Amino acid sequence: MGLTLASSATKGLPDGGKAQRVFLHLHQEIARGAYAPGSVLPGEQKLAVTLGVSRVTVRRALDVLEADGLIERRAGSGTVVCAQKASPTMAADFSTLMPQLVEMGQNTTARLLSFSYGVPPAGVAAAMGLDGQARVQAAVRLRLVEGEPFSHLTTWVPEAIAQNYTEAELATTPLYRLLERSGVKVDAAHQTVSATLASPEVAEALGVRVGAPLLSLDRVVRDEEGRGVEYLAALYRPEMFRLEMTMSHVGTGKTRHWEPVINLARREAAE
Amino acid sequence: MGLTLASSATKGLPDGGKAQRVFLHLHQEIARGAYAPGSVLPGEQKLAVTLGVSRVTVRRALDVLEADGLIERRAGSGTVVCAQKASPTMAADFSTLMPQLVEMGQNTTARLLSFSYGVPPAGVAAAMGLDGQARVQAAVRLRLVEGEPFSHLTTWVPEAIAQNYTEAELATTPLYRLLERSGVKVDAAHQTVSATLASPEVAEALGVRVGAPLLSLDRVVRDEEGRGVEYLAALYRPEMFRLEMTMSHVGTGKTRHWEPVINLARREAAE
Repeated sequence: MGLTLASSATKGLPDGGKAQRVFLHLHQEIARGAYAPGSVLPGEQKLAVTLGVSRVTVRRALDVLEADGLIERRAGSGTVVCAQKASPTMAADFSTLMPQLVEMGQNTTARLLSFSYGVPPAGVAAAMGLDGQARVQAAVRLRLVEGEPFSHLTTWVPEAIAQNYTEAELATTPLYRLLERSGVKVDAAHQTVSATLASPEVAEALGVRVGAPLLSLDRVVRDEEGRGVEYLAALYRPEMFRLEMTMSHVGTGKTRHWEPVINLARREAAE
Repeated sequence: MGLTLASSATKGLPDGGKAQRVFLHLHQEIARGAYAPGSVLPGEQKLAVTLGVSRVTVRRALDVLEADGLIERRAGSGTVVCAQKASPTMAADFSTLMPQLVEMGQNTTARLLSFSYGVPPAGVAAAMGLDGQARVQAAVRLRLVEGEPFSHLTTWVPEAIAQNYTEAELATTPLYRLLERSGVKVDAAHQTVSATLASPEVAEALGVRVGAPLLSLDRVVRDEEGRGVEYLAALYRPEMFRLEMTMSHVGTGKTRHWEPVINLARREAAE
């Protein structure tokens, strides 16, 4: 349970209240499109007057926006809003659990950060339907695209299933393939999506600043007997990874309702 | 574009690097179940030694965890991890756009924060397929359950459609009902889910601290001719609202794939 208090991977978020507020205000204005990509932000002096803060405070906020790749300061032409992150952006189809990585021509790699056996957290055991003393294989992996980490994946698998694969195999093979190879008949999954902040450990692994926003996805996968065979707690960098879904309004009159549009061409399970 | 730099609604997040790191570390340990609900956290002195920080730093982090409802300090029995937030929690079925609010016996109310006509942000106009000068009706609403705000909803609707309803009607009636009443034939929707941080304005409206994590959902709704009839940018408090989805693994052999399990009993559109 060590805590790294000075990480080279974390960028300097203005930790004073005012600079953080200016940063978050401008961050949202850019996200909402109030300042379109390619447009020029008001000057530091004008922002300071408009927002009722000092010019130094504005500059600190702009430093972090620039470090996050949202703006670019150009000599002579001012502060320009960037078209998009330099990082590659991926999307996953939430209706099918399937990532569009292949379609987008991007290859991901995985890095295994930890691999151990033990008793899972109480919430994980309960969600998987395991009794409190049941042992599981726990792993933490990073998934990267073009060398840049975009997801932090913690998985728990019942010991009896996990004994069919090795640490080396988990480092190189998607977990769902290892489960299938172990004879598991995957039947259903339940997933919950939420948002959280990067803790020091996760921030260091993902290369974001402590307290940065992360998309979180928890998934319980069950076999044909309803037994939990995998619990996935995934954290994604929102500027690199989004969940997307297309819905169609079908039926007529009282039976009219929404249904997801499913692309059956995507058959690989996502992580 | 005013910026409130001192909001009564924002709680005091430790703005020093160390206290914020301890807060986020313990926040994640609790979320992951390393400290189960009802269990007692190590004492301040022990945490200070383990994490390599001062006792004052630990105390500041615990103050914010307590303000966020994650822990409770009890005289005599130490710091206890809370079972769950005192706030009501809601879930929405992501596969059908439909909230389970009715099933959960919870009534929500709406509060209209702003209502205006104008040109939308460039990103919104592009997503809706509007030309750069097209005017829209823009509204910001809060949705509350038991008096507590859980979502911050910004919507844009083309002017020609919006002229069929009034500000007072939008304050009291779900937007999709107003669209249908205006003769709009809703046909499809595309939604993107991500995570962001609460800006000062949003934090004040939702009653969370500046920089708190929020689940974000952007949705473009189209009519039968493919025209954008609504753009929704929703921000949810993650401790009060989650997106949930159940998937079934169907088919055999090479046609085997995931499909969402759809509950047709839920026919109301979500906001």
